[in-house]
Amino acid sequence: MKFLSRTFLLAILGVTAMSMMKQKKTRIVFFGDSITQAGVGKTGFITKMQEMLQQKGTAAQYELMGAGIGGNKVYDLYLRMDDDVLAKNPDVVVIWVGVNDVWHKASSGTGTDADKFEKFYTAIIKKFQAKNIQLVLCTPSTIGEKTDYSNQQDGDLNNYSNIIRKLAKANNCKLIDLRTDFRDYNLKNNTENRESGILTTDRVHLNEKGNTFVAERMMEGLGLK
Amino acid sequence: MKFLSRTFLLAILGVTAMSMMKQKKTRIVFFGDSITQAGVGKTGFITKMQEMLQQKGTAAQYELMGAGIGGNKVYDLYLRMDDDVLAKNPDVVVIWVGVNDVWHKASSGTGTDADKFEKFYTAIIKKFQAKNIQLVLCTPSTIGEKTDYSNQQDGDLNNYSNIIRKLAKANNCKLIDLRTDFRDYNLKNNTENRESGILTTDRVHLNEKGNTFVAERMMEGLGLK
Amino acid sequence: MKFLSRTFLLAILGVTAMSMMKQKKTRIVFFGDSITQAGVGKTGFITKMQEMLQQKGTAAQYELMGAGIGGNKVYDLYLRMDDDVLAKNPDVVVIWVGVNDVWHKASSGTGTDADKFEKFYTAIIKKFQAKNIQLVLCTPSTIGEKTDYSNQQDGDLNNYSNIIRKLAKANNCKLIDLRTDFRDYNLKNNTENRESGILTTDRVHLNEKGNTFVAERMMEGLGLK
Amino acid sequence: MKFLSRTFLLAILGVTAMSMMKQKKTRIVFFGDSITQAGVGKTGFITKMQEMLQQKGTAAQYELMGAGIGGNKVYDLYLRMDDDVLAKNPDVVVIWVGVNDVWHKASSGTGTDADKFEKFYTAIIKKFQAKNIQLVLCTPSTIGEKTDYSNQQDGDLNNYSNIIRKLAKANNCKLIDLRTDFRDYNLKNNTENRESGILTTDRVHLNEKGNTFVAERMMEGLGLK
Repeated sequence: MKFLSRTFLLAILGVTAMSMMKQKKTRIVFFGDSITQAGVGKTGFITKMQEMLQQKGTAAQYELMGAGIGGNKVYDLYLRMDDDVLAKNPDVVVIWVGVNDVWHKASSGTGTDADKFEKFYTAIIKKFQAKNIQLVLCTPSTIGEKTDYSNQQDGDLNNYSNIIRKLAKANNCKLIDLRTDFRDYNLKNNTENRESGILTTDRVHLNEKGNTFVAERMMEGLGLK
Repeated sequence: MKFLSRTFLLAILGVTAMSMMKQKKTRIVFFGDSITQAGVGKTGFITKMQEMLQQKGTAAQYELMGAGIGGNKVYDLYLRMDDDVLAKNPDVVVIWVGVNDVWHKASSGTGTDADKFEKFYTAIIKKFQAKNIQLVLCTPSTIGEKTDYSNQQDGDLNNYSNIIRKLAKANNCKLIDLRTDFRDYNLKNNTENRESGILTTDRVHLNEKGNTFVAERMMEGLGLK
Repeated sequence: MKFLSRTFLLAILGVTAMSMMKQKKTRIVFFGDSITQAGVGKTGFITKMQEMLQQKGTAAQYELMGAGIGGNKVYDLYLRMDDDVLAKNPDVVVIWVGVNDVWHKASSGTGTDADKFEKFYTAIIKKFQAKNIQLVLCTPSTIGEKTDYSNQQDGDLNNYSNIIRKLAKANNCKLIDLRTDFRDYNLKNNTENRESGILTTDRVHLNEKGNTFVAERMMEGLGLK
Repeated sequence: MKFLSRTFLLAILGVTAMSMMKQKKTRIVFFGDSITQAGVGKTGFITKMQEMLQQKGTAAQYELMGAGIGGNKVYDLYLRMDDDVLAKNPDVVVIWVGVNDVWHKASSGTGTDADKFEKFYTAIIKKFQAKNIQLVLCTPSTIGEKTDYSNQQDGDLNNYSNIIRKLAKANNCKLIDLRTDFRDYNLKNNTENRESGILTTDRVHLNEKGNTFVAERMMEGLGLK
């Protein structure tokens, strides 16, 4: 709870209070790429959050919904936000995007320019905020878990994370800084400077430990802990 | 005039007639990338069209405006269409985009996926048509003028041109098929299979001959000839 | 047999004659990428060539050996030609490379510049010819089977094929022009302009029909038919 | 002098001593890309080293020669090492390459795979060492001077620098670790996290200060200080 800004907490509490009066659960939609898509799987981080809520006895107050599609970049989110998120009338939206915007530069030549990444991300924020939706932005965690900044996309991921941090601040959104969280975890636990196998299976997608780690970060970041 | 569809011609005439009653010129905005940006230069194709209209004595009926920005891809047009085109209240918009969507794959790793190209292009068409703006779509002319289909981006440019042809048909837009026009011209005039110097200075941007060639195609395609 | 140059035929016959005197089979090594690697599989084109030789009753005169490794570009061949080809003392080497040199530009940003492709290819030719090895060069067949030149890499594959044709001529090597052969076959048989499924499973690698087709072209090109 | 390994120092001294007996200067060839090519310019780092030698009064003992060509990657060095370096009969060769191997991935899709980078680099080392040439390897300095590891190619440059450090150790070559040197300098002097203008003009090529800085590092690394 300690990482939650007071404003954000009050906002969440307000939404929650309002929801309770209306007998309505706080609906949280996770909007992202393949990592989020896998989040609703049997051992995915969204499923784990649901289990954590049940253990805490607060499951009745929240409704968690996945809206992740593999390969998505920021403008894919932009193009489908009406159909896949707004149509669900969410109270809170967690946006987790950026890995493909960077990765596709090398893997298909169709990554996203940094300035366009910022423009489309801003357009998404503006549209959600116009509907009074609470936003939580996440930085892209990792493409490769080596800790000496020698993963091919480290520089670019750091750059796009800087953009997201700036946008969170400028637009009063909550930030869950998964890139920093993953790095801190790896600095302690990945002493052999391995590329994968710590929190990911394949440098990008979460293994069991990674799903638990993200679930915990999300619980904390969303003030659900 | 012979290439003009009857419907399109009537639409243009209708707009023109209406304009004349209102003492208003038909406003045509050229929306595109660096090629269009250069079109308003001293020897650019838009400037040449203006001169052609004066020679025909019809310059008073039309207002030609450039809205090209170097490096633009389809989603750049999407992001700035309100400010740069709709704000000008055009009667007709000529869209000429695609070279950078393909080229940036190799030159910066940030080209546009073919399916996203189609989605953003469609979104632009829908928004303009909702304002009753007449649309003229152009295929990307060339990145390299060799005629044996051995320019690096030929395959991709052909693919994106197919998408534009399909969109023109599906949305009842006029098509100016510059890719085919350039190829036909080069098959006759580029007998040494040179990369540039026929209609372009540098494989992409128009030389004097290229600007005249495009001006003529546009005059014909727009029914101004 | 009609496509065989007289000189090449005499050379092969000479080698064959010499081999027979020595009771030695003519050893033909196929040097290439994953397509060649798969060629020695149960239904691969090299296996099929072996079967064709048996049907003709000439199997005793030839020894066919595969030296293909998935993902190889021209400089991979250069780096391993001593160990993987020269060490086998071949009489004839069939070089089939180029798909990855082009493809890796988009798929990992590590394709081969056209001028370096030519330099390394030339270095391979020179080294083999210094050992009196007969060379047969093949153009890269296809990345996508669409016949309207709208496969993304068509322009580049045509360019690299032009380089190989030029090198074959300049160095008196036999050419098996698989790119032209595949295109001719598809123009007749791929009437729906499909991306794959005619001679390939996945736009690149050979299906059953493709292996038979390549085996026949190779038999003819090598004068074994 | 303190960074010089004893072995390397003795080797250089040996070469120098031998040279003096033969009345022959120690010939040092700088082998690299556009940064090295510019090194022989009026204010280039090689020119500055020459001036430093004159100030120290040791200019008569050394002959510094540039062998840099813009755009070169490791296999370009490999292809021209006979003509451009061995033909000069050098006593010492300073190899400084890597920026284009990484950069061309994004700028033209023709960067060098990490494993091929190591293979060609090793082949160069082996060939030079077979001629008893002393080798000094440099890590690639920078593509962008930001100090928070948010330059696009930082991860990849760190990876290729690790390879060069490993090769220097494995082959008993002297290492001048310019990547580390540049970073240390920027951490102190680039407090605004700027992309360029500290040691480079354009994120890559050296400005006046950068040329002096590299000249000093080279003097020290070569034991000429």
